[in-house]
Amino acid sequence: MSLAPVLERIDATLPAALERLQAFLAIPSISTDPAHAGDCTRAAEWLAGELRAAGFEAGLRPTPGHPMVVGQGGGGGRHLLFYGHYDVQPVDPLALWTRPPFAPAIEAGPRGAVIRGRGAADDKGQLMTFVEAARAFVAVRGALPLRLTVFFEGEEESGSPSLADFMRAHAGELRAELALICDTGLFGDATPAITTRLRGLLGEEITVTGPDRDLHSGMYGGAAANPVRVLARILAALHDDGGRVTVPGFYDGVDEIDAGLRAEWQGLGFDEGAFLGAVGLALPAGERGRSVLEMLWSRPTCEFNGISGGYAGEGFKTVLPAVASAKVSFRLVGLQDPARIRESFRAMVRAMVPADCTVAFRGHGASPAARMDTADPAFAAARAALSAEWGRPAAFVGAGGSIPVAGLFQSLLGMDSLLTGFGRDDDQIHSPNEKYDVECFHRGIRSWARVLDAIAGGDRAVP
Amino acid sequence: MSLAPVLERIDATLPAALERLQAFLAIPSISTDPAHAGDCTRAAEWLAGELRAAGFEAGLRPTPGHPMVVGQGGGGGRHLLFYGHYDVQPVDPLALWTRPPFAPAIEAGPRGAVIRGRGAADDKGQLMTFVEAARAFVAVRGALPLRLTVFFEGEEESGSPSLADFMRAHAGELRAELALICDTGLFGDATPAITTRLRGLLGEEITVTGPDRDLHSGMYGGAAANPVRVLARILAALHDDGGRVTVPGFYDGVDEIDAGLRAEWQGLGFDEGAFLGAVGLALPAGERGRSVLEMLWSRPTCEFNGISGGYAGEGFKTVLPAVASAKVSFRLVGLQDPARIRESFRAMVRAMVPADCTVAFRGHGASPAARMDTADPAFAAARAALSAEWGRPAAFVGAGGSIPVAGLFQSLLGMDSLLTGFGRDDDQIHSPNEKYDVECFHRGIRSWARVLDAIAGGDRAVP
Repeated sequence: MSLAPVLERIDATLPAALERLQAFLAIPSISTDPAHAGDCTRAAEWLAGELRAAGFEAGLRPTPGHPMVVGQGGGGGRHLLFYGHYDVQPVDPLALWTRPPFAPAIEAGPRGAVIRGRGAADDKGQLMTFVEAARAFVAVRGALPLRLTVFFEGEEESGSPSLADFMRAHAGELRAELALICDTGLFGDATPAITTRLRGLLGEEITVTGPDRDLHSGMYGGAAANPVRVLARILAALHDDGGRVTVPGFYDGVDEIDAGLRAEWQGLGFDEGAFLGAVGLALPAGERGRSVLEMLWSRPTCEFNGISGGYAGEGFKTVLPAVASAKVSFRLVGLQDPARIRESFRAMVRAMVPADCTVAFRGHGASPAARMDTADPAFAAARAALSAEWGRPAAFVGAGGSIPVAGLFQSLLGMDSLLTGFGRDDDQIHSPNEKYDVECFHRGIRSWARVLDAIAGGDRAVP
Repeated sequence: MSLAPVLERIDATLPAALERLQAFLAIPSISTDPAHAGDCTRAAEWLAGELRAAGFEAGLRPTPGHPMVVGQGGGGGRHLLFYGHYDVQPVDPLALWTRPPFAPAIEAGPRGAVIRGRGAADDKGQLMTFVEAARAFVAVRGALPLRLTVFFEGEEESGSPSLADFMRAHAGELRAELALICDTGLFGDATPAITTRLRGLLGEEITVTGPDRDLHSGMYGGAAANPVRVLARILAALHDDGGRVTVPGFYDGVDEIDAGLRAEWQGLGFDEGAFLGAVGLALPAGERGRSVLEMLWSRPTCEFNGISGGYAGEGFKTVLPAVASAKVSFRLVGLQDPARIRESFRAMVRAMVPADCTVAFRGHGASPAARMDTADPAFAAARAALSAEWGRPAAFVGAGGSIPVAGLFQSLLGMDSLLTGFGRDDDQIHSPNEKYDVECFHRGIRSWARVLDAIAGGDRAVP
């Protein structure tokens, strides 16, 4: 069956698809902020409605946190599961946004139209490329090209606290042969890419308490323990001078990439200077002697995501603070074990806290790295389909970010993930003024139509 | 002339004096917060009115910041200047207060009645002990016992940015033979004390900027510089393992106390365990091998008063922050030069910042340490007067805190300061639930009556 009518339908209905996306982006589904819990549910309900409109049986599934959305559609052929997340990052610093983050609009950009708003690229715009592709199949053919389960999460940006338990409890409804995930980007803004390795993520919050109240830094300074000082020494000790993480046993399970992959990555022509220069930097800050792509795709990290303590307002306050805290995250690769690293990290920190101070820990998610078995013929089919849509050979790449769900799909449901996505480096995800290029949205929908058709064994000759 | 009728008048009018103090405490004169600028002026006007009621010619003097209050009173005899400050510390964390910080009240405390409210001890209650003593002299005798200039500042808690320029411009109106300052405490809660050495204070704010926006810690983590990591390394490097400050040249001008003073301090019976235990600590955190009193009175420090960067809200955000900043203060002793230390500190910090990051500095006050010449007979007279009021020998002590004005009185107006005050260690100044004991307020007023009378050469035989 020719795919051409499906692609034509996608082209013709793009304006309506863009309107649907803007309605979705207007819902401020910030999962990490309890004040937005109602908005998260509203986003989930909106999505379930769209899935039903696109031919799925779909509904919400409650969790201790925000609800999941699950849909079932199609019949014969391979059974794939598509995953995306409907929650978005917080928007601070709000003052840096050029428009209200939840009042999305199509704006002119240097490379064509963009959809601007929180979540445009991460991940609402991306997941909608799949929903719109499915809608087009149903509209044109009356059916999906293969059996599809759709699974949307609302806690991805807050460490996915409910995800693993939910997967265990709903394994029967979720298990498929392969997962499709649309939460990654083009390589170098134009080359379609399938991500075959993802870093894992371990989040930790440390809170050091010294005196039982804020003190006057003159009356007590020099004699009383200062939690900011204790915390600074801990954080400073987490990397050595060569940029390596010092947590004991941290590198257990980290392997070197093989010569073939190294060559493939070198062949990508990645411009380190341009990559760093785009965000105002110039010097690779990771382990000495590694390329930036290695740092991002094949090496683990320890990053500090936030720190606070004492008086941080306008002016000066001569306070010796009672409490200081930091949010620390580790990106993991290979076979690094998040649970063992958490334990080792906490033991290392505890040993650095003076006996009359205390330290408390709070975990924020722990997921191992994931590596996909690209021997599944779906990978070759998708590679060919993406190459056809974007007019250049698709690449197998790594990703610096963590998509914990891919690891959980492997460990809990026994399925690999085929990750592809259409974000660009300047999408400013997690930052003010997030956007998604209209071209990426449009070609993204077309890409999924081609990929689903190709995996289903359909006509691959569409130009 | 007998002092007895003055002391009797103080005892009889205590309730009215307490009411005046509560009216003063109700004005939220937080100098460091621009939103309270109007309240600072209101507090200054209130004080000028009280001074006029107590027999002074008094008025406000504008500055680029909050106004000064200057009053002149009395005629013959020695000419003394009394200094206090009408501004108060911020009140956060507000949730820890047991009552609104600016709705003061007399409450029952374990050792008798207390006045609770921000500024009760630091410094509104203390400065009012002097104003009330002056009022009693004028009420009973129709005149002050000697010539008095009164000088109240409204920027002490925010680094006194206008103070030095104001002193230079108003030297004629401010210069006296000796300054009296009431912003210190009793020693060990019961022993009256005259502080003869004060630490200086140098405040610095460091802001490290890395990438030009907040980044996704997965997309950039490992490759991009993290300003929190840079800042933590800087702060951690400011002390060595023995607790000494590592800023080059920091200890230039720091001298050891002599054997006599060491013996006097040892004779005070200071209980290190109780001092630290009162705030939930147990281990002296300063330079190894020093007593706590040495750490507080005769050794310089580097303290971290606040730190911020990245996401510090509820939950977790996988951000690689663009900016991190810290407020750092140094307590100075002996002949340490604040300007040279500032320069050396900034050079040391700059050298630790990667070439593609930037660091900005903002100074928050710089005042040298002060040491008083106790040969002035006013010191012996005050010591005797305080000993009589409190029923035990007054001590010459040091102070860990900084009262920059004392250094400026020396350097700009050529006068030493006689510092005494009636605060107690549990007054919780700079913390939630600040209080001042009614006993301290009452005996403080009586103390100033005795001190002024004694310095004026009056009747010292009042029991």
